Amino acid sequence: MTIEQFQQTIDETYGERDAQRGLERTFMWLVEEVGELARALRTESHERKVEEFSDVLAWLTTTASLAGVEMSEAAARFAEGCPKCGETPCECGRRR
Amino acid sequence: MTIEQFQQTIDETYGERDAQRGLERTFMWLVEEVGELARALRTESHERKVEEFSDVLAWLTTTASLAGVEMSEAAARFAEGCPKCGETPCECGRRR
Repeated sequence: MTIEQFQQTIDETYGERDAQRGLERTFMWLVEEVGELARALRTESHERKVEEFSDVLAWLTTTASLAGVEMSEAAARFAEGCPKCGETPCECGRRR
Repeated sequence: MTIEQFQQTIDETYGERDAQRGLERTFMWLVEEVGELARALRTESHERKVEEFSDVLAWLTTTASLAGVEMSEAAARFAEGCPKCGETPCECGRRR
């Protein structure tokens, strides 16, 4: 699946409700899911980890849609290696 | 770009250093980037928002690699609509 297809799928599945909720409250869900991911990483099964990465990705993507950002454009920043130093592997530690 | 290609690119660019840092410390970077995204969403330009979504996606992906999770498998959970209710658009509000 491409990143563009994933964003389109998420928009079709959740876009209307997420738009009603608004950007700020949707971002709060994203943060909640990051917390659930922390717990899954510490203690839970591989299947639960997959679910939590999936949820964070979905909430990140829907937040991007509400902010007018294409995740495929965001991902493309890394297509030619580290966007900071331009190297693969990165040589700069990507500190901004 | 596919989600699988993105994860491979991130692994090639950052995988060795991130593995040396370890899962827990890499997760802390992810959380730091979520904070930077919050600030960008509040106050900053479209270009900065794209950068911050990009950074969160990259750190989420490298964390997944360290946890042995394929982001393409994670994304596939949403391929047939809401994984909770199975509908597109979702009818359940995706509360777990």
